[in-house]
Parts: sequence; structure tokens; C-alpha cells
Amino acid sequence: MMATPSKFVLYNYWRSSCSWRVRAVLELKKIPYEYRAINLVKGEQYGKEFQQINPISQVPTLQFQTSDGRTEILYESMAIIDYLEQTFPTPSIYPNDPIERAKVIAIAETIVSGIQPIQNLVVMKKIEEITGSKDQSVEWSREWIRKKFQMLETMLKSMSGTHTFGDHLTLADFCLVPQVANAIKFKVDMNEFPLLKRLNEFLLTTESIAKARPDNQPDKM
Amino acid sequence: MMATPSKFVLYNYWRSSCSWRVRAVLELKKIPYEYRAINLVKGEQYGKEFQQINPISQVPTLQFQTSDGRTEILYESMAIIDYLEQTFPTPSIYPNDPIERAKVIAIAETIVSGIQPIQNLVVMKKIEEITGSKDQSVEWSREWIRKKFQMLETMLKSMSGTHTFGDHLTLADFCLVPQVANAIKFKVDMNEFPLLKRLNEFLLTTESIAKARPDNQPDKM
Repeated sequence: MMATPSKFVLYNYWRSSCSWRVRAVLELKKIPYEYRAINLVKGEQYGKEFQQINPISQVPTLQFQTSDGRTEILYESMAIIDYLEQTFPTPSIYPNDPIERAKVIAIAETIVSGIQPIQNLVVMKKIEEITGSKDQSVEWSREWIRKKFQMLETMLKSMSGTHTFGDHLTLADFCLVPQVANAIKFKVDMNEFPLLKRLNEFLLTTESIAKARPDNQPDKM
Repeated sequence: MMATPSKFVLYNYWRSSCSWRVRAVLELKKIPYEYRAINLVKGEQYGKEFQQINPISQVPTLQFQTSDGRTEILYESMAIIDYLEQTFPTPSIYPNDPIERAKVIAIAETIVSGIQPIQNLVVMKKIEEITGSKDQSVEWSREWIRKKFQMLETMLKSMSGTHTFGDHLTLADFCLVPQVANAIKFKVDMNEFPLLKRLNEFLLTTESIAKARPDNQPDKM
């Protein structure tokens, strides 16, 4: 039997939705980790110190010691989560059936590649630069989220139960809740999305998601 | 033993980079499929006919018959690819080691969620609308790809061999090549990225990627 990896350190930021996803999976799988805050708004991800950890300045970054004593780092939230799922398979973030599993991934990717990247900090800064207006960059994010949430609300009608997919906690939940938090931050009216709203309110009460929420992190401002 | 699913139909578009990813995996795994073209530029994904297949108008969409005779559809390229990997595990698109596997996913996600969504058709249209200039929307895509390719080139220095990750074909290759094709379409100077350029030129000669390339599809214009 393989020894397990250890000494997990998560470089992350309280308000980053990608960080929240990873924190929730760590909580679900009861993996102890050290929290190290990287302030994305101050640009600490580009600082000399963090670049020695991760030369491409990505947060969240997971550092750990492998079973044979090497120090490894992983980044990109979906890659970190896949590693955790492979290495600590129980409880799983996926249904067993491969079609259901693919549907969970479809929901996750609709958020991870379909919504978050278009409304993130660097893109918003670029929109502000082009339009000369901070308001327009917020409007940009609000409108994209709204448009994509309409799609997601339709998608989930045939998929959700008590949870985003069916009646169990999955990766889809860990992606949905942080994205709804972003929506609320950008003043998207969640009453337009009764299903997403109901799922979000319920999921915020589940242990792993609640522990991982931004408000409960040490670098919260 | 489970009967295998059958009658695969791929709704896709020759020039869509997400479609190319899925076609390449189908080729690698030697899964026969029927090709059905959905012209994204003409907006056929929003047409009545396709909406009966996929109410949220996503391409690529994979339709198939399950082993117990149901008709299923899956969409989101990474979800479709995960299903194919789960159901037809050989040859695999991942290394066996969970850390190496996560690094392959990190490369894939850097492209799938970090680059493609910001330079895709709907975002470009919005930029054209905001700026009133088609040229500026092309410039938008070119600049994002350039910026993210700088990051990818750095990332891959410690990961690539003959292939994007190490010396074997993986999901990372199926994501990289279609993204480089987009870069070339937007006139990104690939001489700035010697590693990506070299990998792309080599990978275009591999069977599954070559068969799946846009030029070889029936709806090519």
C-alpha cells in the first residue's frame, strides 16, 4: 500500500471562487491543510515570494509532500480537485454511473469554463481599460452571469434534486455556490433564477461548503 | 459485463476548437460516429431542429444509445471526453500517476477555461458591440491568447517532452492543437512561442489529431 501524501498547504484567497471550490473538497474529504492567504487584489500572486512557489502566479495552488518525500505543487482548481478525488476517493464528488458523472462535469464546466473566466478580475480590468468605466466592467460581469444563469437554470431543471445534480453532494455543488456568490456580488437578481436560488440557499447550510465559505476564512476583510 | 453504448452521433462544427477536442478523442479510441454539422456562424445551434436535441444550444453535443436502449445526450467537451474515457478506457488520455494526471488536467484547463472562453465567438461579438469595431474584437482575442500563451509556454517547459505532457498523447494535446489553430487564425505570431509551435507542428502529424482537424471535416467551407 502507498503511503499517503501529507503536509498540504493551500495558497488561496478568501474571495476567489476557484479557491472556495478547492477548500470545499478538502473539507468534504477531511484533509487537513494549512491556509496561506495570497491577496489577489493587492497582486500578491505576482510577487517574488509566491512566484518561487508557482512561477505562473496561479491561485489556488496546492503544495504537498508526496509519499516518497518530494514536494509537489498543483494548480488549476479542476486539476487539484481531480488529484484529491483520485488520491482520497471517499467520499466521492461524483456519482458512480459514467453518464451521471459526465452530467456533473457538464454542470461544473458550464460554470468553470463558461461563466467564471469571462467575469474574472483580469477580464474586468481589461473591460474597464477599453471602456474607461468601472461601472461598465461591473455591468459586463452582471450581464454575462445573467445570460449564462438562464442557460444553467434550464439545464438544471432536468438534473437537480435536493442538490445541483440529484440528491447528493457533487462537484456541481462546489462550483455552483461560489458562482452564485459572485452573481450576488455583481447584483444579479437571483429571484430571476428560483432553482439556482433554492439550491444555493440549501447548499450554504452543508458542512463542507459552509466551512469553506469566504466569510469563514482568516484573510477575510 | 455491460453491453457497450452505440450509435454515436456528434453534433459539431468543423471550425469549433471544442468540437476538435472531442473528435480527436473519438478517433484515438476508434469509436465510430456519425458526423452532423451545426453551423455556428449561421446560428444553427439556436434553430428549432437542434433545440429539440439540445435545449441549451451547446456544440459539441454527443448523442448515443445506452446499453439498455435509452437515447442520451451529453454536452460540454470535457464532460463528453470524461464519459468516453470512463466507458472506453483504452487507450487512455491520461498518465496513470495521479500527480501526472492532474498536471495534464491543469494544462487542459489552462486552455479550456483560461483561454478559449475569453476569445470565443459570443464574447468577440460583445466586444464588437461595445467598441463598435470588428478589428478591436480580433485584437481582443489576439492579445488574450498571446498573454495566456506566454504563461503556457512557461508552464510547459517543465512538463513537455515530445508531447505536451511528457512523451505520450494525452488530453493536453487534444486541447493544445485546436487552441494553436485559433491563435493562428487571429494572427498570433507563433514564433514568440517556440515550444508551443514545435509541439503543435509535431502533434498535427499524429493520426487522431490529423483525422479530427477542421480541414478534414465534411462541413469545411
